[in-house]
Amino acid sequence: MENEALGMLLRRGIDLDSMAQLVHELQVPYNPTLTVEECRESVSHVLMKREVQYAIITGVTLDEMAEEGALKEPFGSIVREDDRLFSIDEILALGIVNVYGSIGLSNFGFLSETKPGCLGRLEERGGVSTFLDDIVAALVAAACARIAHNA
Amino acid sequence: MENEALGMLLRRGIDLDSMAQLVHELQVPYNPTLTVEECRESVSHVLMKREVQYAIITGVTLDEMAEEGALKEPFGSIVREDDRLFSIDEILALGIVNVYGSIGLSNFGFLSETKPGCLGRLEERGGVSTFLDDIVAALVAAACARIAHNA
Amino acid sequence: MENEALGMLLRRGIDLDSMAQLVHELQVPYNPTLTVEECRESVSHVLMKREVQYAIITGVTLDEMAEEGALKEPFGSIVREDDRLFSIDEILALGIVNVYGSIGLSNFGFLSETKPGCLGRLEERGGVSTFLDDIVAALVAAACARIAHNA
Amino acid sequence: MENEALGMLLRRGIDLDSMAQLVHELQVPYNPTLTVEECRESVSHVLMKREVQYAIITGVTLDEMAEEGALKEPFGSIVREDDRLFSIDEILALGIVNVYGSIGLSNFGFLSETKPGCLGRLEERGGVSTFLDDIVAALVAAACARIAHNA
Repeated sequence: MENEALGMLLRRGIDLDSMAQLVHELQVPYNPTLTVEECRESVSHVLMKREVQYAIITGVTLDEMAEEGALKEPFGSIVREDDRLFSIDEILALGIVNVYGSIGLSNFGFLSETKPGCLGRLEERGGVSTFLDDIVAALVAAACARIAHNA
Repeated sequence: MENEALGMLLRRGIDLDSMAQLVHELQVPYNPTLTVEECRESVSHVLMKREVQYAIITGVTLDEMAEEGALKEPFGSIVREDDRLFSIDEILALGIVNVYGSIGLSNFGFLSETKPGCLGRLEERGGVSTFLDDIVAALVAAACARIAHNA
Repeated sequence: MENEALGMLLRRGIDLDSMAQLVHELQVPYNPTLTVEECRESVSHVLMKREVQYAIITGVTLDEMAEEGALKEPFGSIVREDDRLFSIDEILALGIVNVYGSIGLSNFGFLSETKPGCLGRLEERGGVSTFLDDIVAALVAAACARIAHNA
Repeated sequence: MENEALGMLLRRGIDLDSMAQLVHELQVPYNPTLTVEECRESVSHVLMKREVQYAIITGVTLDEMAEEGALKEPFGSIVREDDRLFSIDEILALGIVNVYGSIGLSNFGFLSETKPGCLGRLEERGGVSTFLDDIVAALVAAACARIAHNA
């Protein structure tokens, strides 16, 4: 199932390296000797967790089916429009953020709000990424939390 | 959107009265003069909240599409099988539980575990109710929390 | 810090065995060959997590200081009275429940509501256990979640 | 209890105006005609919620008692040092963020990470504000969420 989840991310334009890059930028101020390779490994560990894999499979499937018009209405339109009050995407992402405890929360919020790196590219790319952008922010935040726990 | 959400619950066999009944059973020990009518009104108030409506529309759509085999794989099978480690249903329901604060949590857990009243009937009915049973437990728990806040 | 946390639980009348007993009762229906020893080991693993230790130290310190009248007012009275709308105890416990994902939620709610075994004895014992009862329910629920993940 | 909570914030250097200012900065991009007065009113509404008042009273009492050396050890030192892995402050703040649903999460994280306005001044002021900075970020984020819901 891990390969399934990783494959779905790749299919939507998100790879391990671009997430590792964001982890590195966020964590290096606290940990100046941290390498991008260590960040990549931390993202990999997050992706091994079963609940993380379920969240990715759920979110990416919904984005893709919404994009293809394959979700029943009104749900399809709701996902496509990503109304500010539709918070199911953020709730789903929280399940990922919390896998290494609540310390991932502030990084998650910061990434969701500022959309640096691959998160910004996701927005430019077009298509539906209602769930994916929160999922990627959550994966990065959880990988940061894991590094903080092990530091 | 409130009617849409309520209509989806009815279509899946859940009406206001059966939820009001559960609210009454849970709250009457703390509040002996509480009527079923007041409980019904409390459930109605919960259903007016936008994030509650979004959670219902999301969950019921996923249950129905999984039942009809209309969700992409492997997501469709995941929803149908409702693996104990698939916690997206519980995470989604938490968004409802929390609309009147965290005091709804213990009632939510109790209902999920013991499945009284309409929750038990849901299980017997067959079909996919991976999301719906958690949603109904959450609606009842939130309505209890609202009564506790106003008492 | 793990010994500190465990010592605080013991000082308030909660030992590993009584928690392992509850884990066993809740999990044996899903896992008939499960031993109490395995449950005890699962509780031990939960207690190794840093955020769990912090939650125990926070909660037990507040219970004890409230009992001794050493907390500033009005906070001391709030902790002693454990108003139904005071949900800080439940929020704190959630941090423990979530260490193995959201699947611990329903067990947590069930234990908070029904108070079996050592949770019931805690209530009879008198003294302030506003935080401790939620913490113990959360530790048991997290240990159950860990077993479910490994099963 | 609302006055108690507001008085505690003032005592620690946080007033309604400085929070309203932050709400305005965050929301005006989505809502160009929004006034600071409306933001102030939104913060006031957040402060009327019982669970918000409990979180403020809990957090500020702990900060003040830690500052005065009045908390039992090791808890006093833990609060004073505000270790990155001590996430009880963030967990407590989440109870505030969620009063208007999960849409407050990204603003909360952004504020916690960037510490603009009164949050930055809080840090410069010295003294213990382990809990207070998360509480203020959460109050601002919840007031933003309320505005988004009503817009």
